[in-house]
Amino acid sequence: MDDVIARLRQFRDDRDWKQFHNPKDLSLALSIEAAELLEVFLWKNPEKANVDKVKEELADVFAYAFLLADSYGLDVRKIMLDKIELNEIKYPVNKAKGSAKKYTEL
Amino acid sequence: MDDVIARLRQFRDDRDWKQFHNPKDLSLALSIEAAELLEVFLWKNPEKANVDKVKEELADVFAYAFLLADSYGLDVRKIMLDKIELNEIKYPVNKAKGSAKKYTEL
Amino acid sequence: MDDVIARLRQFRDDRDWKQFHNPKDLSLALSIEAAELLEVFLWKNPEKANVDKVKEELADVFAYAFLLADSYGLDVRKIMLDKIELNEIKYPVNKAKGSAKKYTEL
Amino acid sequence: MDDVIARLRQFRDDRDWKQFHNPKDLSLALSIEAAELLEVFLWKNPEKANVDKVKEELADVFAYAFLLADSYGLDVRKIMLDKIELNEIKYPVNKAKGSAKKYTEL
Repeated sequence: MDDVIARLRQFRDDRDWKQFHNPKDLSLALSIEAAELLEVFLWKNPEKANVDKVKEELADVFAYAFLLADSYGLDVRKIMLDKIELNEIKYPVNKAKGSAKKYTEL
Repeated sequence: MDDVIARLRQFRDDRDWKQFHNPKDLSLALSIEAAELLEVFLWKNPEKANVDKVKEELADVFAYAFLLADSYGLDVRKIMLDKIELNEIKYPVNKAKGSAKKYTEL
Repeated sequence: MDDVIARLRQFRDDRDWKQFHNPKDLSLALSIEAAELLEVFLWKNPEKANVDKVKEELADVFAYAFLLADSYGLDVRKIMLDKIELNEIKYPVNKAKGSAKKYTEL
Repeated sequence: MDDVIARLRQFRDDRDWKQFHNPKDLSLALSIEAAELLEVFLWKNPEKANVDKVKEELADVFAYAFLLADSYGLDVRKIMLDKIELNEIKYPVNKAKGSAKKYTEL
């Protein structure tokens, strides 16, 4: 994904937007985009969502997620693998299998 | 990122969770994780956020974003590049430079 | 609701929390509580949500919404009636009846 | 607020929208409106937000919060007072005074 992240940085810097991109506001932007994605599913059965809109809104979610990771110099693969390991402890297969419960209720 | 996505799928299938993972609920999960990330910044200046918590919550955001993309068979690089092209039209450099305004207000 | 709002202010002031309650962070808190409410419905059919949890999370949503309104000195009844009038223009009955479309698509 | 809630119901029923208003989708709508409110503060210092927009988006948040409460037949005053009592236990004055920490970290 390095080329895409380079494109995101270039897009931002061409517009002189780094001044606005502190991690708190990037996190707001990410939540806002996640809600715009949610709106594609509003009042609908899951399979009725407009896939072109899903693509656009999900792309915005990824853009802010990568920009936020980049602002901290994080390796996205690494934080994801670390979190999967944590979740394997929180959600052991024998307790979590077939259950949609949160780990605090297992 | 293919190996990480494979790990996410494996984690899900070991727990028999695919039955819950329709795209609407994945989108809810993504919004919920984005809000948990936002909470790391709540009542604080941006630079005071706990970076270890940012890593964990951002990893969860990426996990649901990739699972949602995967559920539609989307190529994340492609949807991101397509959206950057759209945003270059919505936010032309000469209008957007140095401005935090939304494209509808430029 | 004046007595409840007075209780919210008292709760806040007993803990010396007004210093944290700028409108931006109150808006973050409101989004976070809305996501906690959303989590009560995650991976479930609507009628399977735990009503006691709905009550608690919805109460938190109302608390931050009233505190935010209070921080601007807004009359909640008035802003709601004003918005209903706006929505009557955005969503005329003859176009919107029986349709879940957004006003931009009607 | 009973007259406003009656207006919300009337607005909904004039458009035959009750069919869409299950509690899960009302909760989605509430999260989406909370994010639109958040967007009024994006990339800005708290005091720079456009107050007219805050009024509109906050009114939408209240509208869906009241409609959701109404769909369960909840008394908003009561659930708020009950939650304040719970929060007085979670956040005792002697521990929480002057601190922005979450109750799990006090």
